[in-house]
Amino acid sequence: MSTYRHFEDFAPGTIIDLGSRSVSREEIIAFASEFDPQPFHLSEEAGKGSLLGGLAASGWHTAAIFMRLLVDGLLGQAAGQGAPGIDKLMWRRPVYADDTLTAKAEVLGGRPLRSKPGLGVVSFRFTVTNQRGDLVMTLDNPILFACRETAA
Amino acid sequence: MSTYRHFEDFAPGTIIDLGSRSVSREEIIAFASEFDPQPFHLSEEAGKGSLLGGLAASGWHTAAIFMRLLVDGLLGQAAGQGAPGIDKLMWRRPVYADDTLTAKAEVLGGRPLRSKPGLGVVSFRFTVTNQRGDLVMTLDNPILFACRETAA
Repeated sequence: MSTYRHFEDFAPGTIIDLGSRSVSREEIIAFASEFDPQPFHLSEEAGKGSLLGGLAASGWHTAAIFMRLLVDGLLGQAAGQGAPGIDKLMWRRPVYADDTLTAKAEVLGGRPLRSKPGLGVVSFRFTVTNQRGDLVMTLDNPILFACRETAA
Repeated sequence: MSTYRHFEDFAPGTIIDLGSRSVSREEIIAFASEFDPQPFHLSEEAGKGSLLGGLAASGWHTAAIFMRLLVDGLLGQAAGQGAPGIDKLMWRRPVYADDTLTAKAEVLGGRPLRSKPGLGVVSFRFTVTNQRGDLVMTLDNPILFACRETAA
């Protein structure tokens, strides 16, 4: 991406590649130790005895890694003003140590905010896949952006 | 909590206190530096120039802190088997340095999983408030639990 994006730059149907990032066993355990210390996020043995089938990243860790890709691949070069929430998030497959996650954004639509002139909200469908091309996470997420004409 | 909870132990309407946790300026900046390096999550000055009104935690950091409260206050003493996703999450107010977050769970309902005998899904509405009693985050989240009879 070479352009700095404002609200007007997100046409419905636009697809934006957000890049890739790997996650190590050490990172999975460190994140889980701090934020989600359930056994299947902390040890291979407990993971094998669970529905996850092996040591697997906390879903919140997957979400945080996705966020980093979103900042590096889009928001770092855009007039983003935060997000009010998530409409729907699905953890579709476990994320295991040394998986490489790739994220993609699709613009579903957008509208100017009447309550906050100069801002618009863009609705995105984000997808995260692993190195085998399997979907591991999807989320629908509205994000606020400054409009071009008022941001100059 | 002194009991180990299974699927059958979550009657609709049950309210469970999940405890409290504070977040420091250093933690806000460390999390954001790794996962969400947008300016308003990294410096007071950029935060003041944003909709957030000051240095504010990444929404994913708030979610991760909530998750830790959920594990310490409930899942650490329950037959939890992970979660398929989030139905809806709202970041309602910014979380600032030295805020103390308190989380609460309300059981909305539950049903056994036909596709996976011995498991049930419980639907929760979680709320996170700050030290002033303001709601900062709400999320609706289904979580899987082993049933009592098959888990013995």
